[in-house]
Amino acid sequence: MTTNDGVRVSVLGLGAMGSALAAALVRAGHETTVWNRSPGRADDLVAQGARVAATAADAVRASPLVIACLLDHASVHEVLDPLAGDLAGRTLVNVTTTSPEQSRELAAWAAEAGVAYLDGGIMAVPQMIGQPGSSILYSGSADAFEEHRAVLDLWGDSTWFGEDPGLASLYDLALLAGMYVMFAGFMHGAAMVAPAGVSATRFAAMAAPWLTAMTGGFHEFAKVIDGGDYTVEGQQSLEFSDLRDILTASVEQGVSTEVVDMVQRLIRRQIDAGHGKEGFARIVESIRHPG
Amino acid sequence: MTTNDGVRVSVLGLGAMGSALAAALVRAGHETTVWNRSPGRADDLVAQGARVAATAADAVRASPLVIACLLDHASVHEVLDPLAGDLAGRTLVNVTTTSPEQSRELAAWAAEAGVAYLDGGIMAVPQMIGQPGSSILYSGSADAFEEHRAVLDLWGDSTWFGEDPGLASLYDLALLAGMYVMFAGFMHGAAMVAPAGVSATRFAAMAAPWLTAMTGGFHEFAKVIDGGDYTVEGQQSLEFSDLRDILTASVEQGVSTEVVDMVQRLIRRQIDAGHGKEGFARIVESIRHPG
Ligand SMILES: NC(=O)c1ccc[n+]([C@@H]2O[C@H](COP(=O)([O-])OP(=O)(O)OC[C@H]3O[C@@H](n4cnc5c(N)ncnc54)[C@H](OP(=O)(O)O)[C@@H]3O)[C@@H](O)[C@H]2O)c1
Ligand SMILES: NC(=O)c1ccc[n+]([C@@H]2O[C@H](COP(=O)([O-])OP(=O)(O)OC[C@H]3O[C@@H](n4cnc5c(N)ncnc54)[C@H](OP(=O)(O)O)[C@@H]3O)[C@@H](O)[C@H]2O)c1
Repeated sequence: MTTNDGVRVSVLGLGAMGSALAAALVRAGHETTVWNRSPGRADDLVAQGARVAATAADAVRASPLVIACLLDHASVHEVLDPLAGDLAGRTLVNVTTTSPEQSRELAAWAAEAGVAYLDGGIMAVPQMIGQPGSSILYSGSADAFEEHRAVLDLWGDSTWFGEDPGLASLYDLALLAGMYVMFAGFMHGAAMVAPAGVSATRFAAMAAPWLTAMTGGFHEFAKVIDGGDYTVEGQQSLEFSDLRDILTASVEQGVSTEVVDMVQRLIRRQIDAGHGKEGFARIVESIRHPG
Repeated sequence: MTTNDGVRVSVLGLGAMGSALAAALVRAGHETTVWNRSPGRADDLVAQGARVAATAADAVRASPLVIACLLDHASVHEVLDPLAGDLAGRTLVNVTTTSPEQSRELAAWAAEAGVAYLDGGIMAVPQMIGQPGSSILYSGSADAFEEHRAVLDLWGDSTWFGEDPGLASLYDLALLAGMYVMFAGFMHGAAMVAPAGVSATRFAAMAAPWLTAMTGGFHEFAKVIDGGDYTVEGQQSLEFSDLRDILTASVEQGVSTEVVDMVQRLIRRQIDAGHGKEGFARIVESIRHPG
């Protein structure tokens, strides 16, 4: 396989993630040009076959497809603002973590500069890049996604969510929110059982399959939410979902109740508004309409 | 198959759950006696082959193994306090939801009365009883668990956690805490993406496999927690786990930040105490030691 098999790709930023993305490109035989602000981080990639550019401008000029994997929104502007002219006519795929508003702002900047813009949210750690389980969310230019899909698929499962460039970040952050909150729930359970001599490892062995099974409930909740009628039969009611037993036991075990209090408040606001007989899915209304 | 194949069993309480437990016993050919405070709820079970007792005392006297599936701790005492003498020498399996302290109190009451006591926590809805996925947690008398294991296994996977009668309730409530908190995290994500026109159904299709994959992280956290050293290499640090991007995006989407604020507070307390470079698993310390 020669390095002329695929499209030329440049990667700006060789932190843990940028290096993993670049390595996957080199492995697949793409002519890959890399650049990093601080020197030295390209050495391993060069040994694998990448070319190192002396400046970000050189890296941009080397390829029709430019990947930015920097620290944050500000660093993307710092690196790319002086290079708007060089980027014109090329495709920029920005997988730096940004907020939806920041992604939209970068897309508008790119449109102004005549650059096709695709925003990416990486749902993986560097070691997972190119492995099963790695998933990358995209939004922005549909044409850019279609044209470069084969390259993007080297990193993981690629999903495009729509032309609104903020969508990938939004999904990314919404899924991360779910993850961090679930982790807090796991930690609360582990803290509850610890004083009874139950190890976190033993609790994890019960909690992982239990919570996996309970993700099945998302689809039922979603049907009710999308249907817009929280009174549908067969749901667990808000009144039935009282968390007092859990809170009492948490206090008895000497642990903080703040994790579970959060859910109890969402439930209570709906009960207090007169919806106690409706389904548990209604707590989404407590989140949609801040007090 | 005659009704003499197995042990005689009595079930007190024929609500949704008690009826499902009794039906499974009848189906398996056990001589099953049922009782419910309000009349009429035994009719279906009688049609299937159960015997109905006129009083709770009659039901207790009919079998060496007595199952209580009532509303709560108070109702168990209300029904059983007058029957301590009748229960002596029998086994009581109480699957009514109670707190760990209440389970221990009932076990002490049973010991006083000469009753073998097993406490159960049902991790299933009535329709799941006897089906794959139904899991029931037990604690209390090991002898009772061993002797009646074949009966208990008719309802689902049975696990015995130890002689401390409060353990099953504690596990039950700790797992339920994890579930409710995970549900709140899912709802937060669904609320975040909704203003961008993403249906809850579409979000659930992403969130269920994502959170399932992320339950894999529990075992890593548990190893660190049980090891007692949060500085172990290779973990995501607390400082890296800043949730500001998620909170900013939540505000931009017009939704409440309270669900994610809860996690951010757990993280911040550890960072403020000087542990920012340590692993994310350390948030368990924020829960173990209420402020
Ligand atoms: N690692 C993960 O698990 C993961 C997962 C999903 C998404 N991401 C996202 O991917 C992006 C990169 O993450 P990472 O793990 O690779 O981070 P990292 O290892 O900390 O690397 C950060 C990179 O950004 C560069 N950089 C920072 N500020 C800069 C500036 N002002 N100008 C030019 N370059 C600058 C750094 O260059 P120097 O070497 O010169 O400092 C380095 O190449 C982040 O947005 C992150 O949120 C990471
Ligand atoms: N349903 C579930 O999904 C589920 C899952 C796990 C655990 N559980 C637990 O299982 C237990 C029973 O739940 P369930 O769903 O069957 O509830 P349910 O349908 O509301 O039935 C409650 C039962 O308790 C009886 N009862 C209430 N107060 C009583 C009293 N003071 N004296 C005598 N009997 C009394 C009721 O009798 P009457 O008919 O006379 O009112 C009825 O038989 C609860 O502790 C529940 O938490 C249920």
